[in-house]
Amino acid sequence: MAKYLEIVRWVENRIKNGELADGDKLPPENELGAMFGYSRQTVRHALSVLGKKGILESRQGSGNYIRSGQSAVSEDTREKRIKVISTYINSYLFPRVLQGMTRTLEAHGCSVGIAFTYNHIDDEKRVLEEVLGEDVDGVIAEPVMSGIPNVNCDLYEKIREKGIPVLFFHSYYPGLGIPHVSLNDVEAGKAAAEYLISLGHRRIAGIFKSDDGQGQRRYQGYVEALRAHDIPIRESRVVWLDTEDERNFTYSRDRILNRMKGCTACVCYNDEVAHALTGLLQEEGIAVPNEVSLASVDNSELARLNAVPLTSVIHPMESLGERAAENLLAMIREPDFDGTYEFPVEIKVRESAVRCRARG
Amino acid sequence: MAKYLEIVRWVENRIKNGELADGDKLPPENELGAMFGYSRQTVRHALSVLGKKGILESRQGSGNYIRSGQSAVSEDTREKRIKVISTYINSYLFPRVLQGMTRTLEAHGCSVGIAFTYNHIDDEKRVLEEVLGEDVDGVIAEPVMSGIPNVNCDLYEKIREKGIPVLFFHSYYPGLGIPHVSLNDVEAGKAAAEYLISLGHRRIAGIFKSDDGQGQRRYQGYVEALRAHDIPIRESRVVWLDTEDERNFTYSRDRILNRMKGCTACVCYNDEVAHALTGLLQEEGIAVPNEVSLASVDNSELARLNAVPLTSVIHPMESLGERAAENLLAMIREPDFDGTYEFPVEIKVRESAVRCRARG
Repeated sequence: MAKYLEIVRWVENRIKNGELADGDKLPPENELGAMFGYSRQTVRHALSVLGKKGILESRQGSGNYIRSGQSAVSEDTREKRIKVISTYINSYLFPRVLQGMTRTLEAHGCSVGIAFTYNHIDDEKRVLEEVLGEDVDGVIAEPVMSGIPNVNCDLYEKIREKGIPVLFFHSYYPGLGIPHVSLNDVEAGKAAAEYLISLGHRRIAGIFKSDDGQGQRRYQGYVEALRAHDIPIRESRVVWLDTEDERNFTYSRDRILNRMKGCTACVCYNDEVAHALTGLLQEEGIAVPNEVSLASVDNSELARLNAVPLTSVIHPMESLGERAAENLLAMIREPDFDGTYEFPVEIKVRESAVRCRARG
Repeated sequence: MAKYLEIVRWVENRIKNGELADGDKLPPENELGAMFGYSRQTVRHALSVLGKKGILESRQGSGNYIRSGQSAVSEDTREKRIKVISTYINSYLFPRVLQGMTRTLEAHGCSVGIAFTYNHIDDEKRVLEEVLGEDVDGVIAEPVMSGIPNVNCDLYEKIREKGIPVLFFHSYYPGLGIPHVSLNDVEAGKAAAEYLISLGHRRIAGIFKSDDGQGQRRYQGYVEALRAHDIPIRESRVVWLDTEDERNFTYSRDRILNRMKGCTACVCYNDEVAHALTGLLQEEGIAVPNEVSLASVDNSELARLNAVPLTSVIHPMESLGERAAENLLAMIREPDFDGTYEFPVEIKVRESAVRCRARG
């Protein structure tokens, strides 16, 4: 954060918590400078910014005073600056989540700045370092590759140490104590598997993302569902894909076909994977759903438009964005507010899964 | 645990912590039965076992007394029953780790029972359920697939709730507070990458295991090394393999070659991966080390015997087994002992990596 902004935030926070009220006088410039260890020039810049914001008034020869009307309402009326950090990876989900998020933030008088990481840790580092230099009131971030160790966790910690609330959406880094708003991904994986089991399937493959937390949690739900029905768990039926594999699905063709041998059904990480898998199976002359049934997660446009429309767990999309926005605003108002919320799951049934006809 | 064993353990533990001493009289059979809620038959069986162990003597018409000489020395001389649970996956490491472990345990008068999980969670479940029914003093376990969520963690917790110390070796589940003895895998990945960087390489691929914690931590070290030298991190240069992929390396041929495009070097998860990669590159007419340099981890026999002998981070093997055994015994003696130890790393230089000749 720029030096002058530190002073601006300090004054704003003292008004917010009642230590400074309408008409109170600020310490003289030299005292402020000594308090922060900054030059008189920096202090003057901060005071001028506070003046332009209508928070301070300067009385000639007397000093700087809190302008009347600030103390009671300033915190509610002052525009909040919210930074939204997104990967922009799941293009069929992202616009709708972001729409719900920005609409809600703007309805609460916030200004929203959006940055993208493209799911690259170098980009995430750059964006987080920028946030540390900006004057923001809160951060809503989609974690980059939350399924593998992330070397930027220290930067998230630094942002929180500055007193800026941070909320994750879609996923989270388990090690950090940062709240998150997401789908309940364990239940999503479980619901997809349970649906296939309810149709009589027992030899059920699974394709999951290895480099994001959703993938790991959906896998956990898949395993829990199989175990709840006393179905043996075969590690050889599980395929792990990372973001690069998902983009270059055909490079994984042999691995996938090998793992699916003998299986009558497959739980797919999301609609993108289910869509690519449908194509791959059809090319191999394997009929979906009659030879292999599929259940997926996200219930996106792709689920509806797939060659065989997909049975898919419903993703809250706009609602998830709205909830993330609301919870971050609550965290700004009440620092003790726990922003974590996981949406319960429901499955949308279409044609991609049918009753199992295989024996044994 | 069988009912009678609960009573046996209760008596042994009271002797151990000094609540019962030589010549002390045990409560009458009916009181013991009431305390535990077990039948007189079960109590009698427990007392007879304690008699056979030489811990109790029965005096006709008077009751059961702690045999003299028990209180001071019983805990040190009584044979400890240690359960060792291993995956048996890294066959070039396992026998040597186990040798160090069992030799140390037996030198301390322990009896050692070994069980295998084959890195399957269903087998791990079966083995842990068996342990819960046995009378063991400590467990040394190699976690199954510690890089992805494990649904058997509740069973490890149940074992600890019974007061049985558990120590992991090779890896650990981050969520559980169970100590571990392992190589410092973050440093291992970092050392392999640092060595390649020291030879002038900057376009360095990485192949890691996704389903075990070592793979994730070695990846973290690789990323930290690149970042420390201001080398951009390209997710497209990292390949994640799971246990099945490692066994069927050729199914990943296209993925691996695609990720390595333009790279002059590669950090390999372990010697097995480096060995398979050497073969794959040679088949493609790519010369190791002149076109692609390799650095690996484990320094096993395979590193020495590989077509191009491998530069590889040294794995402590026997020492790791010995240390795990010693730390578990310390945990049994002193319940507050922290058994965690990570071995520092050192790299063995051979022919698989040479100075980078490429530009840019």
